[in-house]
Amino acid sequence: MDPRVYEHAEILVDWSARVERGDDVVLSVGPDAHDLAVAVAEKLGERGATLLATYDSSELTRAYLRAHDGEFAADPDYERALYERADVVLRLGGGRNTSAMADVPGETRSAYRRARTGVREARFATRWVSTAHPTRALAQQAGMAYEEYRDFAYDAICRDWEALADEMAHLKTRLDEGSEVRLLAGETDLTMSIEGRTAVNSAASVAYDSHNLPSGEVFTAPAATEGVVVFDIPMTIQGRPVRDVRLEFDGGDVVDHAAEAGEDVIAEILETDAGARRLGELGVGMNRGIDRYTNNILFDEKMAETVHLALGRAYDACLPDGETGNESAVHVDLLLDTGADSRFEIDGEVVAEDGTFVFEE
Amino acid sequence: MDPRVYEHAEILVDWSARVERGDDVVLSVGPDAHDLAVAVAEKLGERGATLLATYDSSELTRAYLRAHDGEFAADPDYERALYERADVVLRLGGGRNTSAMADVPGETRSAYRRARTGVREARFATRWVSTAHPTRALAQQAGMAYEEYRDFAYDAICRDWEALADEMAHLKTRLDEGSEVRLLAGETDLTMSIEGRTAVNSAASVAYDSHNLPSGEVFTAPAATEGVVVFDIPMTIQGRPVRDVRLEFDGGDVVDHAAEAGEDVIAEILETDAGARRLGELGVGMNRGIDRYTNNILFDEKMAETVHLALGRAYDACLPDGETGNESAVHVDLLLDTGADSRFEIDGEVVAEDGTFVFEE
Repeated sequence: MDPRVYEHAEILVDWSARVERGDDVVLSVGPDAHDLAVAVAEKLGERGATLLATYDSSELTRAYLRAHDGEFAADPDYERALYERADVVLRLGGGRNTSAMADVPGETRSAYRRARTGVREARFATRWVSTAHPTRALAQQAGMAYEEYRDFAYDAICRDWEALADEMAHLKTRLDEGSEVRLLAGETDLTMSIEGRTAVNSAASVAYDSHNLPSGEVFTAPAATEGVVVFDIPMTIQGRPVRDVRLEFDGGDVVDHAAEAGEDVIAEILETDAGARRLGELGVGMNRGIDRYTNNILFDEKMAETVHLALGRAYDACLPDGETGNESAVHVDLLLDTGADSRFEIDGEVVAEDGTFVFEE
Repeated sequence: MDPRVYEHAEILVDWSARVERGDDVVLSVGPDAHDLAVAVAEKLGERGATLLATYDSSELTRAYLRAHDGEFAADPDYERALYERADVVLRLGGGRNTSAMADVPGETRSAYRRARTGVREARFATRWVSTAHPTRALAQQAGMAYEEYRDFAYDAICRDWEALADEMAHLKTRLDEGSEVRLLAGETDLTMSIEGRTAVNSAASVAYDSHNLPSGEVFTAPAATEGVVVFDIPMTIQGRPVRDVRLEFDGGDVVDHAAEAGEDVIAEILETDAGARRLGELGVGMNRGIDRYTNNILFDEKMAETVHLALGRAYDACLPDGETGNESAVHVDLLLDTGADSRFEIDGEVVAEDGTFVFEE
């Protein structure tokens, strides 16, 4: 086995999830993530944690959803009980076809997600971490050879996370102290309130309220969004290509939307619930180790010189204690390039220009 | 996909587990059982049941167990809660290497099993069914080509179960009414009490207290075993070959054991706990559709003209209400040929001779 698989497993278990003896761990295994799962299982054994593996296959879910009449049971008790009692959930993404769900109607997927809100909340209440095993399907989605893609992925994952955390702390401080963000880039001119919100220094560890590996972004929960944004980085959402999404906001809500490709996907997402029309996240990619767009949100949103905004659910970590932010069954990230000809301002002060942060100089 | 995969899934869901709308179903998926899992997921969607898939990989378990110090947490709460709330557990066996656990020390496996007795009991309290997807690993273990093996497996699985149930009812009646079984074959001369016990007409459905697909056996829970038995059908137990096991019983307990191969495996099993030295099952294979030995207990023990005895745990279905039979963390089946030169007597009356039942004539 590639020794980087073991390195990946060790970072995931020790740095990211902080697994300790006696932790009850759910390991969610994608069909092609078997090798990583074996390495993680070994690490969990070493740590004296408990292991229960679930099978996360889009092909299974597709078959199930397409056959179902759409009247889904709300928050199945057995699954909720599992996650309510789990300490850690490690999701090892790795399917065989990233478009496996392409022919499941959007309304079926939305109904299924809505019916499982409680299960999802229980999972989010654990020390959960999502990562991905570099598979052939992900290489293909990135337009890369398999060997090339593995190098890319492990360069992004096997990093000095502590050093990156120190660097990102600068932006977190600015966001925590500020009240309004303005983002300018091409047609984009957007203002958002971040008053009273706490930014997350997302350094790929639950110790930083960060739940992705790789990570390398700073994010917060915006409100009262006004203006226009164009997401010029193409993406695949729910297995379908989406390009040049344009959203117009008024009083926090999306009031107009358009897209060069995948407008129906965006429309379906916006229809999920009231929260799906508002932003749940403003994220700033700061991982200069991720050097290209690979059509995978787990990596793309951390790429330096990009900003992403998510429709839907806000993360509790960004909100004052006891306060809930934007609620929704969805959380869908959209990206824009903030390299050349862009400006990121906090309370009228320029924090980044043309892709370079002021504190980087 | 081979249409027999869908037929298998339908028999499993409808005939075997009697899945109904609203049932909470755990689907345990072996790494190479993916295709069957997809077909079962479709069927569960059609029925309006709930689906949670677990990943059952011997390679994961091996990595975990070998790395662990052996002090396992007793009955992890999150896993027990899952099974306590589940209605149905469908186990789709299908690993990539039936010897994947061969280098895990027997005492580690026993300790792990012992620590999880409560989880196992919770699983056995559901409408559970074990089946196997015909994989290349199982074909290899059977010494058969893949295509040939699939024909064999589907011939055993896709049967008229109702007709077989009617045939097996004859033996069940004899066992239910009898008090002592005597088994004669070669060196074997064994007597067992079956007084007050209820035989299971194992017709591959929970409606018959039968939890295997394929099935086709009648079994009960013996007691007070006396005499000698030689298991002349070779087997693979815990990934290791076992051949010509000879057990001597006195007052229900194994008092002497030997084997031509795998004596250490048998010794480890006998050491698990007190119940591992007693019989938990007397089973009579009656499935004439299974026409050869394939080194897989799920199929072998149902083969006509064989009898199997299990060390360890007895099935509650064989016992009077409220009474518990032999208790153990293990249940290990051993087989003997009861074709030529054999006799199966109940209370001194011959029920089968040289492989033919009296009621078959």
